[in-house]
Amino acid sequence: MPNKPAPTANGATVKCNPCLSENKTSIRGVVAQLLAMVNPEKQLISLGVGDASSFPCFRKGKDFSDSLLAVVSSSMFDCYPPSYGFPFARSRAVAEFLSKGVKHGIREDSVYLTVGGTQAIQVCLTVLASPGSNLLLPRPGFPPYETACELAGVEARYYDLAPRRGWDLDLSQLRSLADANTAGLVIINPNNPCGAVYSSTHLQQIAETARDLNIPIIADEIYGHMVFGGSRFIPMASFAHLTPVITIGALSKRWMLPGWRLGWLAICDPPGLIKQVKVATEMLMNVTSGPASVIQAAVPGILSDSHEEFHRNVLTVLESSLDALYARIGQIEVLQCHSRPQGSMFMMVEINTTLVFGIENDMDFAEELIREESVLVLPGSVIGLKNWIRIFFGIPADVLRVACDRIESFCKRRQIKSSSIL
Amino acid sequence: MPNKPAPTANGATVKCNPCLSENKTSIRGVVAQLLAMVNPEKQLISLGVGDASSFPCFRKGKDFSDSLLAVVSSSMFDCYPPSYGFPFARSRAVAEFLSKGVKHGIREDSVYLTVGGTQAIQVCLTVLASPGSNLLLPRPGFPPYETACELAGVEARYYDLAPRRGWDLDLSQLRSLADANTAGLVIINPNNPCGAVYSSTHLQQIAETARDLNIPIIADEIYGHMVFGGSRFIPMASFAHLTPVITIGALSKRWMLPGWRLGWLAICDPPGLIKQVKVATEMLMNVTSGPASVIQAAVPGILSDSHEEFHRNVLTVLESSLDALYARIGQIEVLQCHSRPQGSMFMMVEINTTLVFGIENDMDFAEELIREESVLVLPGSVIGLKNWIRIFFGIPADVLRVACDRIESFCKRRQIKSSSIL
Repeated sequence: MPNKPAPTANGATVKCNPCLSENKTSIRGVVAQLLAMVNPEKQLISLGVGDASSFPCFRKGKDFSDSLLAVVSSSMFDCYPPSYGFPFARSRAVAEFLSKGVKHGIREDSVYLTVGGTQAIQVCLTVLASPGSNLLLPRPGFPPYETACELAGVEARYYDLAPRRGWDLDLSQLRSLADANTAGLVIINPNNPCGAVYSSTHLQQIAETARDLNIPIIADEIYGHMVFGGSRFIPMASFAHLTPVITIGALSKRWMLPGWRLGWLAICDPPGLIKQVKVATEMLMNVTSGPASVIQAAVPGILSDSHEEFHRNVLTVLESSLDALYARIGQIEVLQCHSRPQGSMFMMVEINTTLVFGIENDMDFAEELIREESVLVLPGSVIGLKNWIRIFFGIPADVLRVACDRIESFCKRRQIKSSSIL
Repeated sequence: MPNKPAPTANGATVKCNPCLSENKTSIRGVVAQLLAMVNPEKQLISLGVGDASSFPCFRKGKDFSDSLLAVVSSSMFDCYPPSYGFPFARSRAVAEFLSKGVKHGIREDSVYLTVGGTQAIQVCLTVLASPGSNLLLPRPGFPPYETACELAGVEARYYDLAPRRGWDLDLSQLRSLADANTAGLVIINPNNPCGAVYSSTHLQQIAETARDLNIPIIADEIYGHMVFGGSRFIPMASFAHLTPVITIGALSKRWMLPGWRLGWLAICDPPGLIKQVKVATEMLMNVTSGPASVIQAAVPGILSDSHEEFHRNVLTVLESSLDALYARIGQIEVLQCHSRPQGSMFMMVEINTTLVFGIENDMDFAEELIREESVLVLPGSVIGLKNWIRIFFGIPADVLRVACDRIESFCKRRQIKSSSIL
């Protein structure tokens, strides 16, 4: 006899994960929703998603494909890779690359290859999830952290980045948010979505605060080394003598290979304070799919020092696009960028909604903009900052100028005339 | 003021996920542990892990690499792929492939590309996790289901496969295990680890039982089409008119590309009974890393009909290895295979521990065997069946014969003489 009455099959009893209900927002979900509204009469310009890989101007000197072609031709890497990644990719490539300029260095056995930065985030959050735990996340931030927290049952606590102080962290706010159940502090540097690049002094202050709070730092360095305008990228692991640092990185941005889905997680813990995190990470990687073996095997070639021309060119092109964007945004009265990005590929821009009509918030702005001008921007509310928008500048400067023309004429049409304010 | 006292940093407050404690067993963990015991004087023969990709005898007629080389050379697929996979890979390839011989067919928009079969399992379990839910899993089975259940907070309930009845399911046991919180029934066909291939009649009985219980079937068909000895593979989706079927598959086994980490999850739900599962799957895929874009783009070439010679050859080689193994196991008194595998690449063998000395259980058997003979087998207790071992036969018959020689001489040395039983 069945325990459950079984009349007609109606599927009504199958419940789904409450974290995955229909009104869950995600960048990809909102982007898909906005793209459906594009003006069919104007060609789309996407400033919504961080993927510059399709523009030839960014690919000068590129020969990353050659590394992969050699691997695939050899047919030597069709097998299951080891759970944490091929040792030669973990050591020669990632550990060596991450150790540059870092006092303690990163050991091969502390590097884990992941399916892009996204899996590194999920692994890290799943490992740190214990009953009642919480995690300190930046606001504005990167939504996959929030989702990973929800799915892992970890409480997300937000600290604010200050737009008028170069998007620095407020250390006293950090201290007030943390308690005995705080499992870690996430810092994104160079920052997505703000474009901030934190100074050595500020990073040290953050590390000291984390040390005082007895928590590790999760250092999201997906945009590592993508800095310009005289800024310097300092890996958070440089301060691992103060508190353990779990570094997250990927080939997606600096190498412009987002589709190859190769990321890493590296634990820098010289005094061995979070050995249990390493053990749990290995347990989880043992039961999880990692990145494709052929891509892993191409990593040493990709991370070698022979691609300096490529990286220099990317930064030059990015900075010229940023210059164009920053200058033009400065001329649009209803928009304001409080600090010029020094890194990453994003700029946060505030909308003065009191100066426009028919637009109540950032979502309205993004919807109307794509409907009228076929320009896609990300509404700030998706990333925790209402009435801001995130603009991607990893596109050629001439295309960006066309986008700015359209944004400007959109804003002008919507701007409340001074006379009508009277 | 910090809420938490912050004396010296000792990391003691950072807790990890209790599901990932040090004594968590996994196939990869146990295999690594056994490999460390290998006899340095004899070359290792691994019958422990399901990866035949490195043996040239299985690769006749293979040109899967060509599909990938063409994609990589084009440099057209370095971008982020869409969350659910490139439409041309979802439709032309996977949906078409899965629809062959299936009455209702599988629609492109119900196919999701995943990082191997493992991610498909994780997605499925995460989606079906709701407070208090449980899932019916086969015993012996595939441990990643159990781990995914633990991590998602779903209770695993085991139904037994009957070794003396061709590893069939006991339908009345299924009914007695299910209740109003049962979220689904996992069935692995062709079966890992038992090698069973279920008949159309039995599959229909299972589908009818699931219909009566009002639950969807998760059909793990990773070994789909890998059948021999006159057996026929029937996709579970053929019975989707009875109850919704979520099919899991991958390139890992049939195409011998386990390292490429390309799998899929396909929802076949003609009457739309589990629409919310589809919505939740899409929500989750929107915040998760999928398989590499370049591998996805190679899928149509790989799943095309032009590789029949390759697939036929794989089955011929596999069956000759199986024949060799089955005949030899039958000659070893302390081991017994109750039913000859008809599919997959595994055979389950029972150890008569009363006939051997110095070996108390399957773990002892596997440890002593690799220490003395450098032959790796998987202890059955890892997959839910104590005092059994799982033997992989996806290796050339001549190597398998050497392995059987070693297993036989090991068993003979350890066998209690009839005289000493007196």
